[in-house]
Amino acid sequence: MNRTSLIEQIRLKKSFLCIGLDTDLDKIPPHLLDLEDPIFEFNKQIIDATHDLCIAYKPNIAFYERYGARGWTALEKTCKHIPKNIFTIADAKRADIGNTSTEYAKAFFEQMDFDSITLHPYMGEDSVGPFLQFKGKWAIVLALTSNKGSYDFQMHRLENGMPLYEQVLRTCMTWGTHENTMFVIGATHEEMFTEIRRICPDHFLLVPGVGAQGGDLEKVCKFGLNKDIGLIINSTRQIIYASKGVDFAEKAREEALKVQKQMEQYF
Amino acid sequence: MNRTSLIEQIRLKKSFLCIGLDTDLDKIPPHLLDLEDPIFEFNKQIIDATHDLCIAYKPNIAFYERYGARGWTALEKTCKHIPKNIFTIADAKRADIGNTSTEYAKAFFEQMDFDSITLHPYMGEDSVGPFLQFKGKWAIVLALTSNKGSYDFQMHRLENGMPLYEQVLRTCMTWGTHENTMFVIGATHEEMFTEIRRICPDHFLLVPGVGAQGGDLEKVCKFGLNKDIGLIINSTRQIIYASKGVDFAEKAREEALKVQKQMEQYF
Repeated sequence: MNRTSLIEQIRLKKSFLCIGLDTDLDKIPPHLLDLEDPIFEFNKQIIDATHDLCIAYKPNIAFYERYGARGWTALEKTCKHIPKNIFTIADAKRADIGNTSTEYAKAFFEQMDFDSITLHPYMGEDSVGPFLQFKGKWAIVLALTSNKGSYDFQMHRLENGMPLYEQVLRTCMTWGTHENTMFVIGATHEEMFTEIRRICPDHFLLVPGVGAQGGDLEKVCKFGLNKDIGLIINSTRQIIYASKGVDFAEKAREEALKVQKQMEQYF
Repeated sequence: MNRTSLIEQIRLKKSFLCIGLDTDLDKIPPHLLDLEDPIFEFNKQIIDATHDLCIAYKPNIAFYERYGARGWTALEKTCKHIPKNIFTIADAKRADIGNTSTEYAKAFFEQMDFDSITLHPYMGEDSVGPFLQFKGKWAIVLALTSNKGSYDFQMHRLENGMPLYEQVLRTCMTWGTHENTMFVIGATHEEMFTEIRRICPDHFLLVPGVGAQGGDLEKVCKFGLNKDIGLIINSTRQIIYASKGVDFAEKAREEALKVQKQMEQYF
């Protein structure tokens, strides 16, 4: 999906909500466990109940790999089930030397048909570049993550005075454009959004950490929105695990609707 | 596999060779393509022909994911086929926030039975820590990689004067011990091994980049060996793709033997 279509969908739905699909057999409603493919069945019902309220789905690949080939099959089916007008994010946090990154890109962009993938920047240009070679696909590079560990290296100042995450932003901006690159900025760093918007005013930012991890939607919007909205805000647990009963999809819809209503005011 | 057993195997075989299993349907001998599971069949024959000459196998996970659930099944079968006295490395380059890293650890350490996994350090302690919670398993953290992109961030000097890769080494050493943590140091940075050994004299280093990528085995050994050998040197293309004929496993053995003979002089 290209940038224009993404913005169109955002304006149409008055939403910039991404729903995380971290589907965990220990957390989904027990009545699904007897089905042949409980992971896919859970995702299918969540997607069917919420797809008019969100503009993106983000399966967290670890939760599929954890179940081996069976998990991978559930992921493939999930990816196929997501309506074509919804942006899909493989939250895979990959990146390796060039020929290996190309294989990862083929896995997520060709073997499956994800629009985008999250990537570690540590290995530099030739590890991210291969993902930018796929037309209509996006690299979403980790810049400043939502976890405590973001203070270990990302916030360290370099000799040139910039924190590492800023160097990552500025360097990655030279590899691609705002038409094929986004950045991950955790909602827990809400005070940094003004500075980040000074560095990359036009890029879409994928923002995890709202809800369970403590980030504040209102503050992120206040400092992070740009003229095209420019934010994709992820929520996972609060929505997909709103109920463990047979009403789980309905309850997920209610939670997604609450977030969408909060977002509507920014249009 | 614990450190003592790994060192035992190294001394027994007079080898610190790791063979990379980057199994690519476009590169394996064409006569295998008609079989039901050509990826596994290729790996099986390579393993059967070389397992007395190497002390580790390192499947590159991208090459399996690329083929979806089918690739994942081939990976699972490969992992099971590797003899128990050989160290196994999931070259997966993962790491995410804590609960997600735990899922990746379950995928590679429980669902499969890998001894170790390669990890990106960018997200900090709570992204690497979960892998250290698994007894007898290893985190192999990227420090200084073999590719050109290693100059983009890893070699940048921080305000405290250290290059980022050194900060990564020093910080990660406080999270685990030399009994559960190794570091990736690319063979292409052979001039850095003296300095790296000053920082972490006891840790095992996984060294890719010898052979096709241009690293020099002799120089790496000269500056990188420690009293327990302390190096796991990976070679992939030069060994597994030595021939595209029916003799591919035999030729792979010949190439592995050449490297093992070079290594023998250090015992």
